[in-house]
Amino acid sequence: MKKTSVELVVVGSIGLDTVATPWERREEILGGSVSFACAGASFFTPVGMVGVVGEDFPEPYVQAYRDFGIDLQGLQRVPGRTFRWSGVYDADMNSRRTLLTELNVFAAFKPELPPAYRKAPYVFLANIAPDLQLHVLSQVESPKFVAADTMDLWINVARERLLEVIASVDLLTLNDSEARLLAGEHNLIKAARKILGWGPDYLIIKKGEHGAMLFSASGTAVVPAYPLESVLDPTGAGDTFAGGFMGALVERGTLDQAAMRRAMAYGSVVASFGVEAFSLDRLQSLTRTEIEHRLAAFRELTRLDA
Amino acid sequence: MKKTSVELVVVGSIGLDTVATPWERREEILGGSVSFACAGASFFTPVGMVGVVGEDFPEPYVQAYRDFGIDLQGLQRVPGRTFRWSGVYDADMNSRRTLLTELNVFAAFKPELPPAYRKAPYVFLANIAPDLQLHVLSQVESPKFVAADTMDLWINVARERLLEVIASVDLLTLNDSEARLLAGEHNLIKAARKILGWGPDYLIIKKGEHGAMLFSASGTAVVPAYPLESVLDPTGAGDTFAGGFMGALVERGTLDQAAMRRAMAYGSVVASFGVEAFSLDRLQSLTRTEIEHRLAAFRELTRLDA
Repeated sequence: MKKTSVELVVVGSIGLDTVATPWERREEILGGSVSFACAGASFFTPVGMVGVVGEDFPEPYVQAYRDFGIDLQGLQRVPGRTFRWSGVYDADMNSRRTLLTELNVFAAFKPELPPAYRKAPYVFLANIAPDLQLHVLSQVESPKFVAADTMDLWINVARERLLEVIASVDLLTLNDSEARLLAGEHNLIKAARKILGWGPDYLIIKKGEHGAMLFSASGTAVVPAYPLESVLDPTGAGDTFAGGFMGALVERGTLDQAAMRRAMAYGSVVASFGVEAFSLDRLQSLTRTEIEHRLAAFRELTRLDA
Repeated sequence: MKKTSVELVVVGSIGLDTVATPWERREEILGGSVSFACAGASFFTPVGMVGVVGEDFPEPYVQAYRDFGIDLQGLQRVPGRTFRWSGVYDADMNSRRTLLTELNVFAAFKPELPPAYRKAPYVFLANIAPDLQLHVLSQVESPKFVAADTMDLWINVARERLLEVIASVDLLTLNDSEARLLAGEHNLIKAARKILGWGPDYLIIKKGEHGAMLFSASGTAVVPAYPLESVLDPTGAGDTFAGGFMGALVERGTLDQAAMRRAMAYGSVVASFGVEAFSLDRLQSLTRTEIEHRLAAFRELTRLDA
């Protein structure tokens, strides 16, 4: 990568995941929202990671981050064990159960931005506690565009703080069930209008294999998920999407509808590669040329005028 | 309508539906696959209906068909009671339970094509028993394009006859759960490839609020559902989509990818109006101008290059 300044800062969780699908089980593979989001963004822009790992964090995983070109000034290594998560997917790969969550070093995580990150124009607050998201926000100087993701846990246990985050960011990303839970409204259009009323200019509702929707005052956009014959591991797909989206937005440099829609398409394409293998495995071998080829196929797929 | 020859023949069920949603319950309203499909097609082409009703079929419902400009030469009126169906929708409006199915005159239905229908270039075999679909097929002379729909019941109890139908038609339409059941394959891309291998040139998988996918040897197309703030009654949406699709295909006159994609968009738009009210209520007041306006919004929604 030629540009060396960090254009995009991403804060979130780093985990050692144990993932079981109906066909395969993998232990202590690299995961966490910031891992997937930084990997997704790395194809488009220099990205800096803010996260925490323990002493047991495997060196090959640090090397994996380096191979993506991710700036690691914000990666804290502290005494103790790395955060662990374990989940099992149902036969249809659409729903999963969490078997175990071990916070470990993540429990005391206080994200601190290295000085070089404080002037970053783009910030993505991936899924962590709203308190930590606000703490990061307080450290950035005058960002051009801030996005945040969250999860059902924070909607349930830290709603007020989460609403502060929502009021402070330009874009909120949620999956469909989280949008319904947050808004207390089943219909997604109504839920979106309600959430936009709380502050953000943009809302992306992620619908997994059914794609994603972008809502804003200037219109609604819908992108499908790229149809795949084989999904090996959907873990992190939403984070990869959001990372790809933010990266593509930085690359474009503007914040208009055209830039947003282009970023939605790139996010969807990068996420579609991610789920073809466990962890970051597929993303590690992914090239921009492959991304562009699939983007062309994606355009072909969604074109109404053939 | 200026053209008076019947370009499209649709065969299927006519029912008096009792539908309960979380907010409202309607008794003995006009329903059935052929009602929704003919109404959907009527905005684009002269359409002839083949179906059966009993002596109790309300005259206002016959008038409703006439108001759509539907040709009724193939509508049989026989002694006995009209087919009845009753269902209740869950709170999320996505799943429903059938409370009652009374076949009545439908049990002995033998669809006979009026002579004027036998040369029709386009035929849609809406959801009825595969035996009856084959009986209709045997009566059409040299159709240009035949589509068929079906349901889980026939996949389970009349699989062999259904496979004969599938081998004889140009297009099969199914919803996603039916495609999975028919192919014995959860992944929709793999399921689609398997089903296309059984004969039809085209397969449309309907995904309700998540849109529809078109599969063929010459490519895959994805259209979203038009996002609605208010869905009053989803009954018949798939039939309205298929009817709108077939009507738009007839109107265009060609069978290339461009015609197919245009038809997918029109089908999706017409179906989106249909679910805004019970029965055919919204479609009865719908105009082509309204369809074109929503189609323009639909294009805007799905455009990747803003």
